[in-house]
Parts: sequence; C-alpha cells; structure tokens
Amino acid sequence: MAFRLRPHERGFYPLFTRAAENIVAAADELAKLVAAEPEARSEFADRVKDAEHAGDELTHEIMVKLNSTFVTPFDREDIYRLASSLDDVIDAMEEAADRIVLYRLGTLPPGIARQVDVLRRAAIATAEAMPGLEKMAQLREYWVHVNSLEDEGDDLYRSLLGDLLVPQPGSSPLDVLTVIKIKEIVETLEEATDAFETVANTVESIAVKEA
Amino acid sequence: MAFRLRPHERGFYPLFTRAAENIVAAADELAKLVAAEPEARSEFADRVKDAEHAGDELTHEIMVKLNSTFVTPFDREDIYRLASSLDDVIDAMEEAADRIVLYRLGTLPPGIARQVDVLRRAAIATAEAMPGLEKMAQLREYWVHVNSLEDEGDDLYRSLLGDLLVPQPGSSPLDVLTVIKIKEIVETLEEATDAFETVANTVESIAVKEA
Amino acid sequence: MAFRLRPHERGFYPLFTRAAENIVAAADELAKLVAAEPEARSEFADRVKDAEHAGDELTHEIMVKLNSTFVTPFDREDIYRLASSLDDVIDAMEEAADRIVLYRLGTLPPGIARQVDVLRRAAIATAEAMPGLEKMAQLREYWVHVNSLEDEGDDLYRSLLGDLLVPQPGSSPLDVLTVIKIKEIVETLEEATDAFETVANTVESIAVKEA
Repeated sequence: MAFRLRPHERGFYPLFTRAAENIVAAADELAKLVAAEPEARSEFADRVKDAEHAGDELTHEIMVKLNSTFVTPFDREDIYRLASSLDDVIDAMEEAADRIVLYRLGTLPPGIARQVDVLRRAAIATAEAMPGLEKMAQLREYWVHVNSLEDEGDDLYRSLLGDLLVPQPGSSPLDVLTVIKIKEIVETLEEATDAFETVANTVESIAVKEA
Repeated sequence: MAFRLRPHERGFYPLFTRAAENIVAAADELAKLVAAEPEARSEFADRVKDAEHAGDELTHEIMVKLNSTFVTPFDREDIYRLASSLDDVIDAMEEAADRIVLYRLGTLPPGIARQVDVLRRAAIATAEAMPGLEKMAQLREYWVHVNSLEDEGDDLYRSLLGDLLVPQPGSSPLDVLTVIKIKEIVETLEEATDAFETVANTVESIAVKEA
Repeated sequence: MAFRLRPHERGFYPLFTRAAENIVAAADELAKLVAAEPEARSEFADRVKDAEHAGDELTHEIMVKLNSTFVTPFDREDIYRLASSLDDVIDAMEEAADRIVLYRLGTLPPGIARQVDVLRRAAIATAEAMPGLEKMAQLREYWVHVNSLEDEGDDLYRSLLGDLLVPQPGSSPLDVLTVIKIKEIVETLEEATDAFETVANTVESIAVKEA
C-alpha cells in the first residue's frame, strides 16, 4: 500500500460495503419469496421492501457525502455511477418481489428461482469485493466473476423467454395475461443482473485508474 | 448572496426555467387530452408534440452553451444531467399523448388522469424551483416535494397495473390487446415521474455542492 | 490543423472507427437476417452475435485506455458516453437478431426491414464520421444526418406499433403472442436507433468543445 499524497475522505468505503451487504439481505429475502408458497410470499416481499428503503438511505448518504467532499478517493463520476447502479440493483429486486405478489401469480417457472440465485451470488461477490476498494485488492477476480454471472443470467433469461413465448408442443400453454405478468418479472430480474454488471465495470474502472 | 470569485456564465438559469415552464405547458395539454372525449384528443396531442419540439430546442441550446462555456456555474455533469432529465420528462409525456391517440383507445382508466395530475404538480414545482438555482433558495423543500410526488406516482402506477392485470371478480375483463396498450401508457407516464425525480436529485446535488 | 499544446493520447480515434465499422458489419448481417427465409435466419444471427462479441472487446479496450490515460483527447465523460452508446447500438441489434430466431417468427412485417435499413444507414454515417473526430471535420453534417435518420426511425416505429395493435378492418389480426413477440423486436430496433442519436449528440458535444 503506497503512501498517499492526498489525505482524502475515507468514509465512502464503509458506505459502499454496507450498500452491498444490504443487497445480499434483499437477495436472501427474494430467494425465500420465490421458494415460498404463493400465500406466504407477501411477508418476504415486505422485507425486500424494507431493504430497499435502507438502500435508499445509504444512497442518499453517499450522494450527500459526495457533494460535500472536496477531495474524493476516486473520480466523482465513478462514485456517482457506483452508488446509482447499486441502487438500480435493489430497486429492480424490490419491483420483482412486489409484482409477484401484486399479480397473484401461482407457481412460478423454475427458471425464476435460478435467476434469483444468480443475483444472490452476484450480491455476495459484490459485498466481498467492496472492502477491497480501499486496498485495490482482488478486484480483477471479482470483475471476472460478475461478468460470468451476467452471462449465466443472460442464458437463463433467454431460455425463460423462449419457454414463455414458444410453448413446447404437448405442453399446455399459459394464458396470455399470465405470459405478460411473468415476462415482466423475468425482465425486471434481468435488469438487476445488468445493474450488477455496471457495478463491476465501475469498480474495474476505478481499479485501473488507481493502478 | 456572497461575492463570487468566478464571474461565471449566468445564461443557464433562464434556459432551465424556460425548459421547466415548457414542461408545465405540455402537462396542461396532456391533462386536457386525458379529460377529453376520444375524438377530441388528437388536437391536444398535437400541442404536446409542439411543446416537445420547443423542449428539444431548449435542450440543444443548453448543450451548445455547456460545450462552449469555459467556466460553468455548476459542475458540467450536473448541467448535462439536468438538461437530459428535463428532456426525458417531456419525451415521455409526448410519447404517452401520442400512443393514446395512435391506439384509438376508448375511455381510459381514471388512474391515468391521476398520473397526469401528479406530473402537472411535479412540473409546476420544478418550474417554481428553477429560478432558485441561482440563489440556491428553497431547493430542499422542492426536492422533498418532488420525492413525495414520486411516491404518489408509484402508488398510482402499481394500482393501475394491478387493476389491469388482475381483474376484480365480477368486473368484465379488458381484451388483452387493450391491456397491452394501456400498460404501455401507464409505464410511459411512470417514466416521466421517475425523470422528475432525477431532475430533483440533480438539483439537490447542485445545491449541496454550493452550500 | 492547429498546433496542440497537449500531446495527448491519439489511440482513441482508431478504436472508435473500428467500433463503428464493426457496427456496420453487424447491421449488414442483420439486414440479411430479416431478408432471409425463417429457416436461414440463425446463421445470420450467429454472425451478429460474433460482431457483438468483437464490439465488447473494443469497448473494453477503450475503457482500459480511458482509465489508464492521463491526458485524453477530449473529456473523459464524452469518451465514456461515446463508447457506451456504440456498445448499446450493437447490443440492441444482437438482441433483436436473437429474438427473431428464438421466437421462431414466420414472415416479419415489412416495416422491420425498413427499421434495419435505417440502422444500416446510421451505421455507415457513423463509421464515416469517426475518422473526422481527429480533425473535427464534417461532424455537423453527420450529426444532422443521424438526427434525420432518427426521425425516420421514429415514424417507422410508430407506424409498426399502430399496425400491430390497431389491426385494419378486413385484415386478419395476429394472435396476441405474436403481437407481443414482434412488439419486443420493433422496440429493440428502436432502442438501437436512439443509441445512434446518443452517439451523434456526443460527437457534436465533443466538436463544439474543440471548436
């Protein structure tokens, strides 16, 4: 760890770590929701909503600190992008949880639980990487990992869309309103995966500049 | 008002005020459109389109000024984000107006007029706040106000989606093509509300830096 | 060409040119795909996918160079935005190509081939403009051209939506699942057109600053 000329504001690091840990908590509740019986889902959706509120406060804290700090540890736009994309992740998770309950869906296609599992693993990887921002340690590995999770998410997404919209011969097709509802949910979960990729790309961008 | 060391370009303030006032005009026409009989709608859609063109010119004027001004009154990226998000608001309003006419919809669900009313109030609040950018006055109040309007918009949006996709027992369900059309319109109006929140967050970010 | 005080990194220019030429290649394959018989489409979709992979590598190369270059030829955020929006163009093209095959669509509405033709022309205009970034030559003309292509794309998009969702009397309506599939594809192609406009606006922004 090199001597630093600029004694910059260190308070950003723990906030990013807390934001990422909060996303792990949201992902855990979302995983329980998609594994639960339909009538038990709303309790977990409430907890995802609570995590989303906690995330909003962390985002706001980061933005206030960003705007009131003269020398930031990395580029202002990188901090802004990192906070925004962490916020996008949890917003999409909350929206998916809410819609599953709102639309009173019955059994979900198993691919949705697999999408949520990808999100959980991306959340854990992100929470483990955040403390490394301060020391610029092992960030390359994290970036590669999230990019491969994003590929896994893409494949799941694509196969869910295919199953929904091109029913296999012999299977009983879903009614169209149900197709519309489930399509919205798998798209929202895919947005969360994409937002994790933006998080990882921003972290990489910070790491390369500091190298 | 403190003495300023940098005699920076003041021409941005009136442009932002005009952009916001133009959005109020668009919101007024959109409110008339959703209150009108179906056959009277296209006239109001034309006026929303006119406002959108006027907004494009204002956005372009701001961007040209931004790119040719050496010392800007606030961060370049904040000016860019503010102009872009004001543009996003009016683009979404215009798209919603256009689609209601294009899709030849009959009676609209009453929730849509309530969404448009939230947009009108957010537009008025924004137009009233813009002159405050120069003096950094009363911006906190504005930010809180738009965030509460955004919450109100979210609740309306969610309840419109529920009504559309989970028909109440006893009510006659809409045909699926109509569901698809109305869903697109309520989503587009929700995008306009979200863009107002981005406007308010950017204003807050400018205010905190200047404080 | 004026004497430059800052001997800045010139390696960005050829990378942007290569990224734009790669998009021309993708657009050519996409044009062949939409002109082909359904059973011949997947071969062209594979080639669009290959171009998208090549584009990802170019984007990554630009970002790494951006993050490791101290003095960039233009604003960091402009380079970031230019690379990101070129990436958005090709991602949307690839997604459209993929979905046409995945959804096993039969004959496509002729408007889709026209959307792709607009994209091809925008891609060619962009590839021709990129070398001009270094000399700041003829960029205004390019910007005007892409903006008019974007208007043409908007009109096509709107008319495709109208035809899909408001079937003409006497025509046999599509089944709703097919409407959903085609709507997604025309929306994705429209996103590619919008991303070309962001490319052009960013180029204009760079040009004005340098003037």
